[in-house]
Amino acid sequence: VDAAISGGASAVQVRDPDATGRELHELVAWLAQHLAGSGVPLIVNDRADVALSAGADGVHLGQFDLPVPAVRAMAGPNFVIGLSVTSIDQLDEVKAWSVGTVDYIGAGPVFQTLTKPDAAPPMGTDGLRAIASASPVPCVAIGGITEADVEAVMATGVSGIAVVSAICAADDPERTARRICEAMSR
Amino acid sequence: VDAAISGGASAVQVRDPDATGRELHELVAWLAQHLAGSGVPLIVNDRADVALSAGADGVHLGQFDLPVPAVRAMAGPNFVIGLSVTSIDQLDEVKAWSVGTVDYIGAGPVFQTLTKPDAAPPMGTDGLRAIASASPVPCVAIGGITEADVEAVMATGVSGIAVVSAICAADDPERTARRICEAMSR
Repeated sequence: VDAAISGGASAVQVRDPDATGRELHELVAWLAQHLAGSGVPLIVNDRADVALSAGADGVHLGQFDLPVPAVRAMAGPNFVIGLSVTSIDQLDEVKAWSVGTVDYIGAGPVFQTLTKPDAAPPMGTDGLRAIASASPVPCVAIGGITEADVEAVMATGVSGIAVVSAICAADDPERTARRICEAMSR
Repeated sequence: VDAAISGGASAVQVRDPDATGRELHELVAWLAQHLAGSGVPLIVNDRADVALSAGADGVHLGQFDLPVPAVRAMAGPNFVIGLSVTSIDQLDEVKAWSVGTVDYIGAGPVFQTLTKPDAAPPMGTDGLRAIASASPVPCVAIGGITEADVEAVMATGVSGIAVVSAICAADDPERTARRICEAMSR
C-alpha cells in the first residue's frame, strides 16, 4: 500500500472475501490508522459494517451486495459509496437515484481478469466508453488493466483506473504505480 | 416464523451464511416489516450492516465476526447485540466491557448440532451451567436442544433457549414451539 501511494495511487480498496469479519475489521482498522492524514481514502469491499466500525472512508458495493440507497440511508452523506457496474443496463437504477446516493461507479471488467474468478464477461473499451459517457457519476475502469492499456482505457472518458494485479503483483509496485499515473496524465 | 411465534417464540434470528448481501437484505427487510408491531425482536446473524440497513432490531455476533465494542459504537445504545460464547474463557472480555456493550450471550453448542457444521465441541449442561452462572448478561442456550432437553437445560440457570431444527424441522412448528415454551415454564 505504501509503495502504491508513493507511486501516485490516490485511493485504496481492501478486498478479502475469504477473511472473517474479525480479520477484515483488524486489517481495515490498522490501515485506517496508517492512512490517517494521508489524504488517500480507504474503501472496503462489500462490508459496510466493517468500513463504518473500523474507520474507513467508504464501501464499494457489487450488484449482489447491499442496495446502495439502504447503505446511504444508514451511513449518512459523508460516507463514500461506490457501485460495480458490469453492463449498461445497470446504469438505469443509478440514473434514477437522487444526487449523492452513489459517489462513483466501478465499470468492468474491461479485460479478462484472474483476480475475481466470478467476474462478468469483459466489456472491452467500447463497452466501457458507453458506460462512462452515460454515467451520471464518475466512472472508474477496472478489470485486467495493465500499464500498457492505460492510455486506451483513459481515452474512453473514464475518471480513473483501478488495478489489483498490475501493482500488487509487480516487481516494483511504486515504480509501476508511477508509470500508470504518468500514462494516465498523457 | 409465524407458526413459531404463535407457539410462543419470543425472538427471531435470521441466519443464512450462503446468501448474498442483497438476498439477505431483502429477506430481513421483508421480515422486519412483517414483524413490525409484534413485539418480537428480529436479530440478524453476523451482518450488522444488513441488520441496520434493513430495519432489524439487532445483530448476533460470533467470535470470528466484528468486535462487539466496534459494533456498539457504530450502532448506538438501542440496537440489540448478542455474542456467541463457546467456552468460559471467552467470558473474560465480556466481563471487561462496560455495562450495555453486549445485551446477551448465546452459549453453546450445548449438544451436538447438525445446523452449524463448523460449531465448537459441545459443552454439555455442566459447561453451560458454568457459563450461565458467571455471565454478567442474560445467557441463552443454543445447540442441538430438543423438546426433551428443555427442562435440564433451563435447570442450568440460563435465561432462554434458542433452537433451529427443533422448531424449523418439526412437523408442526407451532405445536412444538408451544411445548418447548411450556417445558421452559416448568
